[in-house]
Amino acid sequence: MTTEIEIPTAKNYPNASVAHFGPLEKWKETRVPLKQTGDVYPGKTWIKDLLGLTGLELSLSSMPAGASVPYEHIHDQNEELYLFLSGKGQMKLDNKIIDVEAGSVVRVDPAAVRCWRNTGTADLVHIVIQAKAGSLMQWTAEDGTITSQEPNWE
Amino acid sequence: MTTEIEIPTAKNYPNASVAHFGPLEKWKETRVPLKQTGDVYPGKTWIKDLLGLTGLELSLSSMPAGASVPYEHIHDQNEELYLFLSGKGQMKLDNKIIDVEAGSVVRVDPAAVRCWRNTGTADLVHIVIQAKAGSLMQWTAEDGTITSQEPNWE
Repeated sequence: MTTEIEIPTAKNYPNASVAHFGPLEKWKETRVPLKQTGDVYPGKTWIKDLLGLTGLELSLSSMPAGASVPYEHIHDQNEELYLFLSGKGQMKLDNKIIDVEAGSVVRVDPAAVRCWRNTGTADLVHIVIQAKAGSLMQWTAEDGTITSQEPNWE
Repeated sequence: MTTEIEIPTAKNYPNASVAHFGPLEKWKETRVPLKQTGDVYPGKTWIKDLLGLTGLELSLSSMPAGASVPYEHIHDQNEELYLFLSGKGQMKLDNKIIDVEAGSVVRVDPAAVRCWRNTGTADLVHIVIQAKAGSLMQWTAEDGTITSQEPNWE
């Protein structure tokens, strides 16, 4: 699969990995195939396989003015969380249409029939996170252990 | 628990929920207590309980110039994903220090000793996602089913 735009590569560490996609205004330039189908959705990049994630999938997305996801869909196992970062748009959740803009966070259960579109004049920049519904057992203070009260940045 | 700043409330739908936090520049103003401890970290907001998420926790975060997480920590069950949205900073991952900026995505395994700080002159705006390591069974095209090829926005 060829692309005119360089796909970021991940740098791997023993317990971590990192990749750099640049500022939000640049996300529209990505051309990354979806692994399962090979389809390229301009401006949308999935990072699970790139970074070796095992608990979630996340996509970075920049949808141009006038665009919409071309279909409605549901999920089988996965809860989704949408976080909108800039621009203006709408989400359809079953038969309810809501307005979204920078700072809107939307939880979507697997069964919800969903679609979203850009209703503004600028790019609608957002992320979509998938995780298995009901899978989180403990979180934040319950799941974390402090190992040092004095970070060493030397 | 009182706060001088209004905490967004969620609007609930049968299969979804939504809340609005405003543009990234405003995230620094949030003062939301962490549910388990009651501690307030200025500019950091956890949204799992607000939205009723069951598969992941996500925090919105704006760290001022010169600030650092005041400790190093590990996790028990949860993988973390960091996405930096604006500003400049560093993450410490075990004994490796890496530079991060807008568009940097970092996967952190539960066992990695981690810390992060703002090394720039502007706010370091970022999100942190927690999901149970190894919990994602299928994703994107494998988990989704298209229900309509023609979205109806009426």
